[in-house]
Amino acid sequence: MKNKFVKAIFAIVLGSALFTSCKPKNSGDAVSGDAAQKAYVAPGKYDEFYNFVSGGFSGKVSVYGLPSGRLFRVIPVFSVDPESGYGFNEETKPMLNTSHGFVPWDDQHHTELSQTNGEVDGRWLFANANNTPRIARLDLKTFKTTEIIELPNSAGNHSSPFITENTEYVVAGTRFSVPPDNSNGDVPINTYKQNFKGHISFVKVGKEGQMDLAFQIQCPGVNFDLSHAGKGKSHGWFFFSCYNSEQANTLLEVNASQKDKDFIMAVNWKKAEEYIKAGKGKLTSTKYAHNVYDEKTHTAKSEIKTQVLILDSKELKDICYMIPCPKSPHGCDVDPTGEYIVGSGKLAALIPVFSFDKLQNAIKNKQFEGDYDGIPVVKYEAALHGEVQKPGLGPLHTEFDGKGNAYTTMFVSSEVVKWDIKSLKVLDRVPTYYSVGHLCIPGGDSKKPFGKYLIAYNKITKDRYLPTGPELCQSAQIYDISGDKMQLILDFPTIGEPHYAQAAPADLIRNNGQLKFFKLEDNTNPFVTKGEKESKVVRNGKRIDVYMTCVRSHFSPDNIEGIKLGDEVYFHVTNLEQDWDVPHGFAIKGANNAELLIMPGETATLKWTPDRVGISPFYCTDFCSALHQEMQGYIRVSPAGSSVPLTFSLGTNLPAVAK
Amino acid sequence: MKNKFVKAIFAIVLGSALFTSCKPKNSGDAVSGDAAQKAYVAPGKYDEFYNFVSGGFSGKVSVYGLPSGRLFRVIPVFSVDPESGYGFNEETKPMLNTSHGFVPWDDQHHTELSQTNGEVDGRWLFANANNTPRIARLDLKTFKTTEIIELPNSAGNHSSPFITENTEYVVAGTRFSVPPDNSNGDVPINTYKQNFKGHISFVKVGKEGQMDLAFQIQCPGVNFDLSHAGKGKSHGWFFFSCYNSEQANTLLEVNASQKDKDFIMAVNWKKAEEYIKAGKGKLTSTKYAHNVYDEKTHTAKSEIKTQVLILDSKELKDICYMIPCPKSPHGCDVDPTGEYIVGSGKLAALIPVFSFDKLQNAIKNKQFEGDYDGIPVVKYEAALHGEVQKPGLGPLHTEFDGKGNAYTTMFVSSEVVKWDIKSLKVLDRVPTYYSVGHLCIPGGDSKKPFGKYLIAYNKITKDRYLPTGPELCQSAQIYDISGDKMQLILDFPTIGEPHYAQAAPADLIRNNGQLKFFKLEDNTNPFVTKGEKESKVVRNGKRIDVYMTCVRSHFSPDNIEGIKLGDEVYFHVTNLEQDWDVPHGFAIKGANNAELLIMPGETATLKWTPDRVGISPFYCTDFCSALHQEMQGYIRVSPAGSSVPLTFSLGTNLPAVAK
Repeated sequence: MKNKFVKAIFAIVLGSALFTSCKPKNSGDAVSGDAAQKAYVAPGKYDEFYNFVSGGFSGKVSVYGLPSGRLFRVIPVFSVDPESGYGFNEETKPMLNTSHGFVPWDDQHHTELSQTNGEVDGRWLFANANNTPRIARLDLKTFKTTEIIELPNSAGNHSSPFITENTEYVVAGTRFSVPPDNSNGDVPINTYKQNFKGHISFVKVGKEGQMDLAFQIQCPGVNFDLSHAGKGKSHGWFFFSCYNSEQANTLLEVNASQKDKDFIMAVNWKKAEEYIKAGKGKLTSTKYAHNVYDEKTHTAKSEIKTQVLILDSKELKDICYMIPCPKSPHGCDVDPTGEYIVGSGKLAALIPVFSFDKLQNAIKNKQFEGDYDGIPVVKYEAALHGEVQKPGLGPLHTEFDGKGNAYTTMFVSSEVVKWDIKSLKVLDRVPTYYSVGHLCIPGGDSKKPFGKYLIAYNKITKDRYLPTGPELCQSAQIYDISGDKMQLILDFPTIGEPHYAQAAPADLIRNNGQLKFFKLEDNTNPFVTKGEKESKVVRNGKRIDVYMTCVRSHFSPDNIEGIKLGDEVYFHVTNLEQDWDVPHGFAIKGANNAELLIMPGETATLKWTPDRVGISPFYCTDFCSALHQEMQGYIRVSPAGSSVPLTFSLGTNLPAVAK
Repeated sequence: MKNKFVKAIFAIVLGSALFTSCKPKNSGDAVSGDAAQKAYVAPGKYDEFYNFVSGGFSGKVSVYGLPSGRLFRVIPVFSVDPESGYGFNEETKPMLNTSHGFVPWDDQHHTELSQTNGEVDGRWLFANANNTPRIARLDLKTFKTTEIIELPNSAGNHSSPFITENTEYVVAGTRFSVPPDNSNGDVPINTYKQNFKGHISFVKVGKEGQMDLAFQIQCPGVNFDLSHAGKGKSHGWFFFSCYNSEQANTLLEVNASQKDKDFIMAVNWKKAEEYIKAGKGKLTSTKYAHNVYDEKTHTAKSEIKTQVLILDSKELKDICYMIPCPKSPHGCDVDPTGEYIVGSGKLAALIPVFSFDKLQNAIKNKQFEGDYDGIPVVKYEAALHGEVQKPGLGPLHTEFDGKGNAYTTMFVSSEVVKWDIKSLKVLDRVPTYYSVGHLCIPGGDSKKPFGKYLIAYNKITKDRYLPTGPELCQSAQIYDISGDKMQLILDFPTIGEPHYAQAAPADLIRNNGQLKFFKLEDNTNPFVTKGEKESKVVRNGKRIDVYMTCVRSHFSPDNIEGIKLGDEVYFHVTNLEQDWDVPHGFAIKGANNAELLIMPGETATLKWTPDRVGISPFYCTDFCSALHQEMQGYIRVSPAGSSVPLTFSLGTNLPAVAK
């Protein structure tokens, strides 16, 4: 096909809808009478589900309640967070280390809850970084980011962090193919076909959640987009959508839309494991960071690793298979039984549903139509269960309710379409406002979806809320899907740029060992101060360590003298409280740094380099008691050559004395 | 009073309530049947009010809708925002410059909407920074931070950014007294009484909103806490609460709670203006930053100023007066008529209400009880209208409904109390969950409150929402106050650490010239590229300027070669779109920087220092069209000595050619 023809098709079929969404009519009328009661969670009552929403370009994960749409928590993952000190305090800086050094931001696209036997188990949440490829693991007992692993040989880590049914692996596929790390990367961009490769990463997850990059599979240079694991009968396989099988390197909006079909790549990862056991993997040199946060020391460490095990898809012919899929496939979703694989070609006018059994037969019987850069291409019809006809325009993503129904979002025609997985008949459709991307049904990509609600994460907001200048929030909508027909019950705005989200029943997480505070006795931070009497200030050359405590409503010490211009001051602040919801904050005037937000039992460290002679106050930033406003102190900075002795005190009204 | 006695009083009167909030019973039952309908805003419908909520330790301002409690926008003000690139891109870095250099964080406590004739006018929102003292102005046509001014001689800028009734001034009072900037700051902390001073700042606001530090009044070393302007008859006066009149410098929770009464300081600023005209101000040397964002160049500039005009309260006896106020006053609020000034002593068991007329008579008749460090102290009874008896424990803040009623929050007893301003009788009380700080009634500190809703911003959250580990969100509650009795209708969580908030009717802001996009023709950024044909890459020594455009769905150029290790690359990206809600994002792999989020018609610049030889992809981070995923490009970095020529292209599939 020629570019002109492609453009003409776009113009005819999709019209301006590609660029500006279709606006469904009667948005207000779409809401029926009992919607308010369904979405309302009365004061003092709890929401039914946690909704873990990717933050997109915020680099964070947002936690909402369903059905209220209320935002409970924003968890910093890949971006610095001046609010909590994440990435600013000494303890968490290593979390954002990469092979490129400290990276203060990333683009967080998908979340995935850990599973046991294909069911959501409420232990961890995985999150991907798209820009500088990484995967993070969050602990759902603390709602903290506890581990981040970088992915070598990758760029644009989009088809991630999807998992296998027992959380054996969390996977990633590169969205942008690039020259491998151990090759000469200084090549002309137009040698894409020869020099650029796409790598699929398999990160092993240990019993305690610890991640380890087990192996990568080198594949042709394409754009991997999304992925999902097989489950049940298809456990052992992983499915990745890919576009740009044209291998274009410029103006992809035209040049990567040439072919009628791109691919879903089926990966037999159990076979890959066998090859590794058989020594078929090649250790190749690279550089990637692995950062682990220790919940006892409250401190992260970053390690740079230098090797990765690579399998070559060209050489090992029976681990990867290409299934043709119309047209620029985006979503790649597997139904709860593991039998059906749904490909959503974002420029397609139908939805192909593939059968795992038929795929296995096709492979067995070598029903191939050649190969794609060494990977066998299975015949489309040989793997096809059937096509959903006229589902709408711009199918993107599909989730499941566990009752045999699939729900697919339509970006261009702005709607969610419900269809029967076996018969492929469209059962219902509802408008979205506007241009829906991902959707989420609680447990909707697992073997046991919880159903009840469907949330549409829309890409265009326009007039849905009161205007806020040129920049608008993103918008989500909640539908009740418990009946035959979907019912819109609430519009709610979201922060960051949500892509995907997952949801779990409240009790699964609430009753799974939620931590209310850190036990002070377990705190092994090297700078912890476990009681006021132990608080002190120590000089080592130009380094000053302040071992400080805080408790309602004072710091110890709160008067410090003898600091000199040129010193570097480390405030190690331990929160002595041992109760829920009593954080303290710490800030000092003029610091070229953020604040500390310190949970009960935790120690956090702020580095401060005084820039002038004089008195600087510090204070508690988190309203903690009726006398919070009195929770302050002063530090005196003298000239470099001063003979003012180092002293510190609390309540003695000076002269501050050295202990 | 001795410390022990103070502590005993606390123990008896307030019990453990000082430290752990009182938990009202039957929280669920407190909600009546029609609450859901009252709080619900159906999909497609608009909220009635904008609620501008201070972000506290987030350093941002949050914009919510009322009565839905939905979060529409988080506006970065004093903290870097990797999500939008604020503080990371070249254009906005100067906004966070201070006399201490670049400061990536602050603690944003109060918001104030501009007023005309004492009524909210919807033009600007002011916001204070507490830690490194500053005031910001936000433009409500664009919802952007457009100006920040630093305050010298100050620390802990808490009693700010409250304004006079025609927005003549925005004021600030130092929370922490410190040695003045032009004094020897290297003094022992226990010389507080001699050497520490409290400064009150008056920042003049011009017709276009531009701020200018007009003068400061030097006052005794105390802790200024909150403030409000007189209005109507009391226009020309400003009232500041202060605590720590004991002038303690350590363990303030005990040492600043010694006296039965601290003060509300009444400032006659019109008299201060007269003194300045008469040449009584002293220009003193200091250093503070003034940062202005230009909405045409989309670029901020920072200027360091070096002088400030000071009036001495000790010398000029008739600009400041102290009114005794029980006990550690916090809130300081003026009723819509301007006659009543409400002081809220956070450790007091009553609420004193002062009369402006009586204050004027007391001053005229010299009904003083001596002076406080040179400032006349008015006799308590001489200025007193009366006291609200048994209002609750821990009164903090008061707002008004314009119908003669006042509403005061009670931190310790966790409730809002409604009382009659004239009769001082308590009319109603409702529980809050838990430990309410500020409250907000739309227009509630102006001459014409809009009433209808009251929002309580609570300081303790505990079990109000599904748990999220040790760190919990903050919590707010909305009450319908249109009837005689207050009715709780909704709990909603808030982000950051909200302190104060203001609200305005939706139409006042919606219909006041809301900007939907920036006109490309008006863009005068020095690096703007107004069309794809003008896009280019220019080398100047080791500096590379990429003049790049973006429009659905490609960047121009999207293939760049000839960059060398050691170069510094500036991506100046102009969003060519001219429609609402079509931002584009820009990110490049491995950058030690954030992303760019570029509104239609805007130019933003990302600085990137390549750290390795090879190919790095860049892409659009904000889902913009059906072909968003195709919106990407590549840049090739060669070794330092390479002879690869500088080339750039779009769609020509290379070899990239120099234009």
